[in-house]
Amino acid sequence: MDVLVINGPNLNTLGLREPDIYGSTTLAEIEAGLVAQGAAAGLEVDTFQSNHEGAIIDRLHAARTDGTRFILINPGAFTHTSVAIRDAFAAVDIPFCEVHISNVHAREEFRRHSYLADLAVGVLAGFGPRGYLMAMDYVISRLVGR
Amino acid sequence: MDVLVINGPNLNTLGLREPDIYGSTTLAEIEAGLVAQGAAAGLEVDTFQSNHEGAIIDRLHAARTDGTRFILINPGAFTHTSVAIRDAFAAVDIPFCEVHISNVHAREEFRRHSYLADLAVGVLAGFGPRGYLMAMDYVISRLVGR
Amino acid sequence: MDVLVINGPNLNTLGLREPDIYGSTTLAEIEAGLVAQGAAAGLEVDTFQSNHEGAIIDRLHAARTDGTRFILINPGAFTHTSVAIRDAFAAVDIPFCEVHISNVHAREEFRRHSYLADLAVGVLAGFGPRGYLMAMDYVISRLVGR
Amino acid sequence: MDVLVINGPNLNTLGLREPDIYGSTTLAEIEAGLVAQGAAAGLEVDTFQSNHEGAIIDRLHAARTDGTRFILINPGAFTHTSVAIRDAFAAVDIPFCEVHISNVHAREEFRRHSYLADLAVGVLAGFGPRGYLMAMDYVISRLVGR
Amino acid sequence: MDVLVINGPNLNTLGLREPDIYGSTTLAEIEAGLVAQGAAAGLEVDTFQSNHEGAIIDRLHAARTDGTRFILINPGAFTHTSVAIRDAFAAVDIPFCEVHISNVHAREEFRRHSYLADLAVGVLAGFGPRGYLMAMDYVISRLVGR
Amino acid sequence: MDVLVINGPNLNTLGLREPDIYGSTTLAEIEAGLVAQGAAAGLEVDTFQSNHEGAIIDRLHAARTDGTRFILINPGAFTHTSVAIRDAFAAVDIPFCEVHISNVHAREEFRRHSYLADLAVGVLAGFGPRGYLMAMDYVISRLVGR
Amino acid sequence: MDVLVINGPNLNTLGLREPDIYGSTTLAEIEAGLVAQGAAAGLEVDTFQSNHEGAIIDRLHAARTDGTRFILINPGAFTHTSVAIRDAFAAVDIPFCEVHISNVHAREEFRRHSYLADLAVGVLAGFGPRGYLMAMDYVISRLVGR
Amino acid sequence: MDVLVINGPNLNTLGLREPDIYGSTTLAEIEAGLVAQGAAAGLEVDTFQSNHEGAIIDRLHAARTDGTRFILINPGAFTHTSVAIRDAFAAVDIPFCEVHISNVHAREEFRRHSYLADLAVGVLAGFGPRGYLMAMDYVISRLVGR
Amino acid sequence: MDVLVINGPNLNTLGLREPDIYGSTTLAEIEAGLVAQGAAAGLEVDTFQSNHEGAIIDRLHAARTDGTRFILINPGAFTHTSVAIRDAFAAVDIPFCEVHISNVHAREEFRRHSYLADLAVGVLAGFGPRGYLMAMDYVISRLVGR
Amino acid sequence: MDVLVINGPNLNTLGLREPDIYGSTTLAEIEAGLVAQGAAAGLEVDTFQSNHEGAIIDRLHAARTDGTRFILINPGAFTHTSVAIRDAFAAVDIPFCEVHISNVHAREEFRRHSYLADLAVGVLAGFGPRGYLMAMDYVISRLVGR
Amino acid sequence: MDVLVINGPNLNTLGLREPDIYGSTTLAEIEAGLVAQGAAAGLEVDTFQSNHEGAIIDRLHAARTDGTRFILINPGAFTHTSVAIRDAFAAVDIPFCEVHISNVHAREEFRRHSYLADLAVGVLAGFGPRGYLMAMDYVISRLVGR
Amino acid sequence: MDVLVINGPNLNTLGLREPDIYGSTTLAEIEAGLVAQGAAAGLEVDTFQSNHEGAIIDRLHAARTDGTRFILINPGAFTHTSVAIRDAFAAVDIPFCEVHISNVHAREEFRRHSYLADLAVGVLAGFGPRGYLMAMDYVISRLVGR
Repeated sequence: MDVLVINGPNLNTLGLREPDIYGSTTLAEIEAGLVAQGAAAGLEVDTFQSNHEGAIIDRLHAARTDGTRFILINPGAFTHTSVAIRDAFAAVDIPFCEVHISNVHAREEFRRHSYLADLAVGVLAGFGPRGYLMAMDYVISRLVGR
Repeated sequence: MDVLVINGPNLNTLGLREPDIYGSTTLAEIEAGLVAQGAAAGLEVDTFQSNHEGAIIDRLHAARTDGTRFILINPGAFTHTSVAIRDAFAAVDIPFCEVHISNVHAREEFRRHSYLADLAVGVLAGFGPRGYLMAMDYVISRLVGR
Repeated sequence: MDVLVINGPNLNTLGLREPDIYGSTTLAEIEAGLVAQGAAAGLEVDTFQSNHEGAIIDRLHAARTDGTRFILINPGAFTHTSVAIRDAFAAVDIPFCEVHISNVHAREEFRRHSYLADLAVGVLAGFGPRGYLMAMDYVISRLVGR
Repeated sequence: MDVLVINGPNLNTLGLREPDIYGSTTLAEIEAGLVAQGAAAGLEVDTFQSNHEGAIIDRLHAARTDGTRFILINPGAFTHTSVAIRDAFAAVDIPFCEVHISNVHAREEFRRHSYLADLAVGVLAGFGPRGYLMAMDYVISRLVGR
Repeated sequence: MDVLVINGPNLNTLGLREPDIYGSTTLAEIEAGLVAQGAAAGLEVDTFQSNHEGAIIDRLHAARTDGTRFILINPGAFTHTSVAIRDAFAAVDIPFCEVHISNVHAREEFRRHSYLADLAVGVLAGFGPRGYLMAMDYVISRLVGR
Repeated sequence: MDVLVINGPNLNTLGLREPDIYGSTTLAEIEAGLVAQGAAAGLEVDTFQSNHEGAIIDRLHAARTDGTRFILINPGAFTHTSVAIRDAFAAVDIPFCEVHISNVHAREEFRRHSYLADLAVGVLAGFGPRGYLMAMDYVISRLVGR
Repeated sequence: MDVLVINGPNLNTLGLREPDIYGSTTLAEIEAGLVAQGAAAGLEVDTFQSNHEGAIIDRLHAARTDGTRFILINPGAFTHTSVAIRDAFAAVDIPFCEVHISNVHAREEFRRHSYLADLAVGVLAGFGPRGYLMAMDYVISRLVGR
Repeated sequence: MDVLVINGPNLNTLGLREPDIYGSTTLAEIEAGLVAQGAAAGLEVDTFQSNHEGAIIDRLHAARTDGTRFILINPGAFTHTSVAIRDAFAAVDIPFCEVHISNVHAREEFRRHSYLADLAVGVLAGFGPRGYLMAMDYVISRLVGR
Repeated sequence: MDVLVINGPNLNTLGLREPDIYGSTTLAEIEAGLVAQGAAAGLEVDTFQSNHEGAIIDRLHAARTDGTRFILINPGAFTHTSVAIRDAFAAVDIPFCEVHISNVHAREEFRRHSYLADLAVGVLAGFGPRGYLMAMDYVISRLVGR
Repeated sequence: MDVLVINGPNLNTLGLREPDIYGSTTLAEIEAGLVAQGAAAGLEVDTFQSNHEGAIIDRLHAARTDGTRFILINPGAFTHTSVAIRDAFAAVDIPFCEVHISNVHAREEFRRHSYLADLAVGVLAGFGPRGYLMAMDYVISRLVGR
Repeated sequence: MDVLVINGPNLNTLGLREPDIYGSTTLAEIEAGLVAQGAAAGLEVDTFQSNHEGAIIDRLHAARTDGTRFILINPGAFTHTSVAIRDAFAAVDIPFCEVHISNVHAREEFRRHSYLADLAVGVLAGFGPRGYLMAMDYVISRLVGR
Repeated sequence: MDVLVINGPNLNTLGLREPDIYGSTTLAEIEAGLVAQGAAAGLEVDTFQSNHEGAIIDRLHAARTDGTRFILINPGAFTHTSVAIRDAFAAVDIPFCEVHISNVHAREEFRRHSYLADLAVGVLAGFGPRGYLMAMDYVISRLVGR
């Protein structure tokens, strides 16, 4: 594995849920796109989604020893509440980016705070599903050098 | 399924736990009462309890396609901490009421804030186990019209 | 008198005022429903409405000696500003419930704080005019035992 | 009139209300004691109590032209909420003291703020009904010089 | 009635009270000026003053059915404390302006917050008694079109 | 120069920008109206607009020696951020009014604070372009006495 | 010893210091008055002043075993900063009153908070040196019963 | 079971994770040490670790009926976010201590707040893996009396 | 002009300034890259940099009539302080993205607030100079459809 | 001297003061126990108690040159108020632990903040007098290696 | 250039503006004094004043390459609002002192915060125009060694 | 005595303590320099240092009658915690400057607040031991006129 893509709670409903905010692309489509984008650059991409904070932490721990070199994460609601995922990133010590589909700055006040952002390499929000591709483009440039 | 009743963390200990605050009725007794109350009005009622935030989210997602028309939830401690359950309600887009057995306004300061209440149809707290029946009465009046 | 129902400022305009928030039922209709509901359970119900904080306090004081055993109050705007009504409840020492027609949690931030809620037996909000009936149902169960 | 004694909301229930906090002396007894204390020093004392903020303001306005030289006020709950009574004191421009029977500093947090205290000559709290006599003693020393 | 002019607590002492802040014009003089100004434009103007929050609410309710098309209000101290008057304006749904004689921004911190201003058409403060005339000029332009 | 009218950033787009908030009158039209209104009262009116904070400060400094007796300013966004313009008013020591076209109290929270308001004679907001005329009417009454 | 009178930092300069705030009576005069007032009621009064927090704590500890039945304290600036004196009162468990010569509510914001007031029987402020006599009068009524 | 030792999220990576903060001892070594320390005092010690909040709550519920007399918990990140674990401790009503390996007071601001500490018997932080032994020493002294 | 790229204060020193935070690429190089990237997609790109808030506002106003369809802005320090630039974006009503070279979430607390982000389509931070290219990629996909 | 044990204000009353909070062991007993515990490990232990902040600072300064290798401190109330003791620890640069007999997290809000904790090696609270022994056990393990 | 002296907005009115706060010395006199003081120590001193934040930033950038070894700045109102000038100092990386003529701590609350002070070598305020000389004395001692 | 120089807690360790923050000059050297600097200008300088807040207050009181015309104080940690020293300065009514060796604005947040600064003539921080000389230079210019 070179790149791990993690999606947090409720992102499995993408394309079904609040389309005016999140669009109609499904998570499966996004994940397939990322795998293809990575493959084109010679990178192996694994994807993972869970509504369980503990499962995400377990998956992050596994990344420590499965060769993962970079992580893309859309932590969903856990962005704002999970110190445990923050600590998991510190524990595995793998660089990561934080991606949000919607513009969190234009929504409820509590979505303006992230427990992960200061540990991340970079953060992007509001670009819709394309945001994942933009972030993967960054990862490729960093890992593959183009 | 017409009505889904969800109970959050620690509510499985009802009747055993802090009886001066929560009384001695067990959750099984409450759930049985709600199923009977619904049945009397021609409504099928399903019940669910979990101490796992992720399991509650999974159950909410299932409600999107199993015919659920209304949800009663006592989110317990997740009331005050779970943005993910908030997002799950937004994702499934089914009307719901928030029920608390104890009067949360008379307890610790942090219990005064709910991440769900502004999305709920209504909220009630402090009426003990009868609060569930009061809320089901509302649901029946809304779904069945009496 | 067994039960006293108090409605605070502006609730005399119910049915006329902001129908999208408060519905079209008038206060007189609600009060008549509560009196009938109480009578059916053998309870005498008195109703009172005022836009004057002082008049509500005077009425509460009177309840101390007129046999009132339970009070339902929709304090309206005084919920958020009246320490004096809070003190009046402490002075008369009669159990009470706080009822709101609209879901106060989904409106302005200042409506989230109540000077009465921590003294109340229970609080309910957002169930429309039916909320009064739900609360009276609780009172009946408590006073009459069914 | 030399001295005006004003008592705010719920103080008419003194002796009846929360005796562990406020004792068993009635307001009538306190007022009689103050009138006698004043008379002994050659001062005419008038007393007034109301649960209506507006009535207290009206009474304060009247004091501007009835010869009142000093005001003792126990504003009760209005201490914490009434900018209008604050403004009335500014309008009549008569020196006053603020008296509280209970120790407001040992009760709810919101009782620590007074809208009147910074305009008052002095403030006392916690001395029970005797606090009124202590304040009247001060008034006598100030008006009569002993 | 076309225009209703409401003055809140302590404004009956205008001209007598704190002349360095409020000037020496009496409220009667101001009200007479406004009636004349309105009459000159063909508008009937009614005036009302009370130190009682409840009385102001009652008067606002009456405006709903007496033909009032615009309200000028100097809420005095109630600006900062009365949610009930805010709700009354929402209930009657008549456009209004908020007028203050003194510059509230240059006084105590708590005078910077108004419970009415965000519902008002406009707000003005600090222009002395002339502020009423300026606001009436706006009303005339709006109702009569000049 | 008797009266200086200053408009801050983005007010040059008036009539073009967010017409639902600001209307369709252009700044040139407003300025022409104010010059005419002043001339009719025998007052010379100069106008100035800039998107540059420093340019507004420079213009204010010039006012100290060009005979300006009163300033009308719509500081736009600088209302909320410019201590430097506040200091410039203190430096030139010329009385001024603060005018806002929209009702700043009904918009974002940060628009409720003004760095100028406590130094101003008066403030008005929400009256649309007519607000400038209302303020000029005040200036005329103050400088010319009618 | 029946009554202990403690004065905190800077109160040794009374009569010399900021006479517009504190008057011209010296601390020695106040202490002599209190001793005499106590003696007249058959109570032995001891006085103590220090600018050292530790010395005041030591003196309070001594009071635990020297027969002290009540303490009057003007903690001066330590009112607002000394948790240690608060703890000393808890340790000796002797009832006490808190006295301030000036009206602390009309001074700097930080003087509004007291680390002692919620443990005190009562608090008084603003009555000048006479405040001590008023408090001693209370002590006498409590200990001697008149 | 006499003593239950619970470790929260990411503590399974101890010895691997951020060695400058947490040292190189593994959790298995710590747990073995605690079991041995307990056995030497005649106490049966069980250990549990999970990254899942719900699993920890389930384990706590089990402790209610398996004879557990004391609980040591290092809640990790859940210290700062889990009201549900707080409620679980209240539900099982078994005394517990809170242990942190690192000095949480010297890290991010949000680590200074614990949802458990006020319910705990005691709290210790910063002593590294030895902190567990220190806490077990306390438990032994309490349960065994030495 | 299809796309306007604006850089705020101090970004002219890119490549010279704090290289550990901002890298060694110069602004001219970045701008050239963006022009080329746009040209390759058939989009005309204009660039602008200024240390003057007013100049940026003037440039934004010009964009309203020069055909600009999208704006990329790195507002630099003005992100956190400029309501005027916020208002300028509202005035011109052209969609825009906010780009930051460094991860603002990992720097001073005050850099966490943006006056522009809630009006932006999207925001990205921390990706170094490549962040501009990522944002331009988004613009191209939006304007050109690939 | 190897280890210095400092107790702050009011701890000289241990065993006498608030036994429900602090138990009945005296400070002399605790100090004797610590000296013995240290001696058994070959460490010389000195003890010091003062109610005077300055005396504690003086004693800390002396530790800089008397060979002290570790300090145990129960700062009592100074925990929450003394920046000067914090600075003294920085000045002498000797590692230390902070010990509290009661669980400060379960008491007044202001006891949750410590001016020393972030400089300390570790902190423990709530274990009663045994907390000192637990801390000394840590010191021995650190200095003597067992 | 060895030393650059920058004065921010409104300081060009020194000697003319608020003489009770700022005295009657003009900026030209101060600048001349500083140039002379520097020359006497063999240092070339350049001075700059602007009311435009952008102009100050431009001047700071120029200092990066004109040999400036130290900067004295009185940022005036920009002290409290300009992140951009803060960033400019970081960009040029030249040591600087912050000088204020008046004692900013004795004025409005918002003047207590500086966006520059934590980056400065030192800060001085309240010494009037002499403060510049004191700061230059420091610069000379640092650059010339006396 | 003309000038009194007071140094607060821990400043006796200057030159020994945290040399990277405070340098290696001792307090004795600084005091000697100030005495010499004063003597050269014909001023008698006295110095005082204490770690005891009470001792500093006692010394300040003595200054009221020993001819002291100006005070230089480095209050050390008492800057941030001592209302009593603030009151002592008010009591003696002698002008003073506040000096800090380190730049308090670049250290912990709590060091940004001073209880003395708004009463001081001026404040300086960050200039190392030379800061005392700079302040004495100001004193000389003020007392001697050069």
